[in-house]
Amino acid sequence: MQNFDYMTPTRLIFGKGVVEKLPQVMAQFGNRILLTYGGGSIKKIGLYQKVHELLRGCEIVELSGIQPNPKYDPSVLEGVRLCKEHKIDVILSVGGGSVLDCSKAIAAGACYDGDPWDLISYKVKAQAALPIVDIITLAATGSEYDCGGVISRTETNDKIGYIDRHLFPLVSFLDPTYTFTVNRKQTAAGIADAMNHTMEQYFVEDATLLNDGFCESMLRSLMVNGRKCLENPEDYTARAEMMLACTYGCNGILALGNSPSGWPCHGIEHALSAYYDITHGEGLAIITPRWMQHILNERTLSRFVKYGINVFGIDASLDKWEIASKAIEETYKFFESIGIPMHLREVGIDESRIGEMAHHIAVNEGLENAYAPLTEKDIAEIITASL
Amino acid sequence: MQNFDYMTPTRLIFGKGVVEKLPQVMAQFGNRILLTYGGGSIKKIGLYQKVHELLRGCEIVELSGIQPNPKYDPSVLEGVRLCKEHKIDVILSVGGGSVLDCSKAIAAGACYDGDPWDLISYKVKAQAALPIVDIITLAATGSEYDCGGVISRTETNDKIGYIDRHLFPLVSFLDPTYTFTVNRKQTAAGIADAMNHTMEQYFVEDATLLNDGFCESMLRSLMVNGRKCLENPEDYTARAEMMLACTYGCNGILALGNSPSGWPCHGIEHALSAYYDITHGEGLAIITPRWMQHILNERTLSRFVKYGINVFGIDASLDKWEIASKAIEETYKFFESIGIPMHLREVGIDESRIGEMAHHIAVNEGLENAYAPLTEKDIAEIITASL
Repeated sequence: MQNFDYMTPTRLIFGKGVVEKLPQVMAQFGNRILLTYGGGSIKKIGLYQKVHELLRGCEIVELSGIQPNPKYDPSVLEGVRLCKEHKIDVILSVGGGSVLDCSKAIAAGACYDGDPWDLISYKVKAQAALPIVDIITLAATGSEYDCGGVISRTETNDKIGYIDRHLFPLVSFLDPTYTFTVNRKQTAAGIADAMNHTMEQYFVEDATLLNDGFCESMLRSLMVNGRKCLENPEDYTARAEMMLACTYGCNGILALGNSPSGWPCHGIEHALSAYYDITHGEGLAIITPRWMQHILNERTLSRFVKYGINVFGIDASLDKWEIASKAIEETYKFFESIGIPMHLREVGIDESRIGEMAHHIAVNEGLENAYAPLTEKDIAEIITASL
Repeated sequence: MQNFDYMTPTRLIFGKGVVEKLPQVMAQFGNRILLTYGGGSIKKIGLYQKVHELLRGCEIVELSGIQPNPKYDPSVLEGVRLCKEHKIDVILSVGGGSVLDCSKAIAAGACYDGDPWDLISYKVKAQAALPIVDIITLAATGSEYDCGGVISRTETNDKIGYIDRHLFPLVSFLDPTYTFTVNRKQTAAGIADAMNHTMEQYFVEDATLLNDGFCESMLRSLMVNGRKCLENPEDYTARAEMMLACTYGCNGILALGNSPSGWPCHGIEHALSAYYDITHGEGLAIITPRWMQHILNERTLSRFVKYGINVFGIDASLDKWEIASKAIEETYKFFESIGIPMHLREVGIDESRIGEMAHHIAVNEGLENAYAPLTEKDIAEIITASL
């Protein structure tokens, strides 16, 4: 078991109607608020109006139009400018993981005098960040309970996971009813995203029995409740359990003391969506079973066997290689069954830039240190198999 | 799924040798330290000397002799007096859960002008507490990751679970090697304590699939690794996994969104150890299977069936009542197999005060609101069955 240093100081306020506590929560942090959001779905569900009503009397500055795979330019830059100009006290992020990721980069940039890219690219270490509060409307990324954000810079095809302990939201409001209107495509992508977060932490050299059990429970819960959310988008219990499960995806609690994983599918997917701006969860779902097939060998076999038996209930008396193959097949079939396009061509990616992307990934993502080390050639093969 | 409001801000620094970070951690909080510990085992393992060496230059005041089932008088009162007299900045608790529980009550009392019992008895709500750092030497209570402490007041036979959000340790150092010298009796009591914490949260009316999976993983891990710790007290991996599992016992993360449990075995055991000062984990292990037997009925049957299949691997095709009975029997047999005395008489409790204790529990512990509500008569029957 590896040594670790772990803390998640975020307060989770969870359940139907909890947003009523927003005024007392925000009052702790100040009166000048940057309200960040995306394309306007929060207006459709009445949440935008509700927030304004609850925060009447506060000075609210808005940054809207934050996109999926949030962009450094203009969103982060514009947010930082607004924070400085209006002497913002606290950021209120209302939306999904992309809005929150963007808000985190803004929070750090607002407390730094230079170019915010210095922080995101780890050239300079953040010394502070503005306080962040969020209201989550999409169960997927786990950004509401971790200190990371993923930011894309279009002109360089960079998509960087920016992690810093100053970036934990101080309070996350999680009301499952806000996810009732999330459509089939985004619900499925959220399931796949959270499942992949769990798998990335499960497939490692050494894991504790405890962490394996936690991860297997996550995967079973996400599959059962994910399906229920798709069948009945207003199933409160299913939406709630999916929302909570997603929350645990990226803060490390599923893998404390495990040996490192290297997050290979994320490494690959970040390039796919940097080059093609695809939906992150779909990209992960497409890559994952091909990555599994690529790394299955004598050394990794036992992990796949455990995964197959405990997650999919595959008969433990079968041959080990058969269990492993079935487990990969079940993974593929589950993603397919929830309506995810399982080929890169279906999301607009062809073979033309595979070499370029594989090179970019090999140079930038450190996958030679992953659980199953990946060279540029391996990466190109996995992407090719995913076409 | 129930609404909840959850936060655990404690930083966990885990692994072999991590205590070397103590100076930089303590420096954040101040120079005047109250060092709290128990009967001297930390001197035998060299940890007392190590702490003094690492904190050379700090002003260290000591409170030693804190007992299991820590006492309000003298330990809490003396600690509060020392904090006020020496203007203590931070408390460093070195030992197991009892030392830390006592330190939490001291931390609150030190920031309050009146009688500290006002706080512990919830007459007055704490407004602040001194910062608390701990080094854990016994895997059991989970106090290192929660904001509660259990304090006994001998003259009134009170044993109160005092919970307040100010009482989270800010940093917990968890080095499994410090638990190598924990003897068989205390190791087994720690296993039983952490298992009971999990069971108390598992047996509820409504639980999520996710939480059930987490709890079942905890129980399997504690049984497998607990046995290994008893077989080879210096098995680092087993001691480490047991230490981490214990940490999750009481901070609520195993039951977020579940309906409440009422912690009935704790309610009963608190009186047993208030009246007879027995080892907490042993008391819990003795009570638990008798409580299970007492509450098994048509309404609770399905929980026992799930427990039996997923924790003990009992054949799911058997009759439900048979699975439930086997599950209770396996619970008893496991505790017995790790050397716990499974009858109250063996730990010095006879029938003479059962009525008095049952009355005390019925009046003070609110078990009429537990998952399976317990009257004074029920409580007396459970204790009698445990003799």
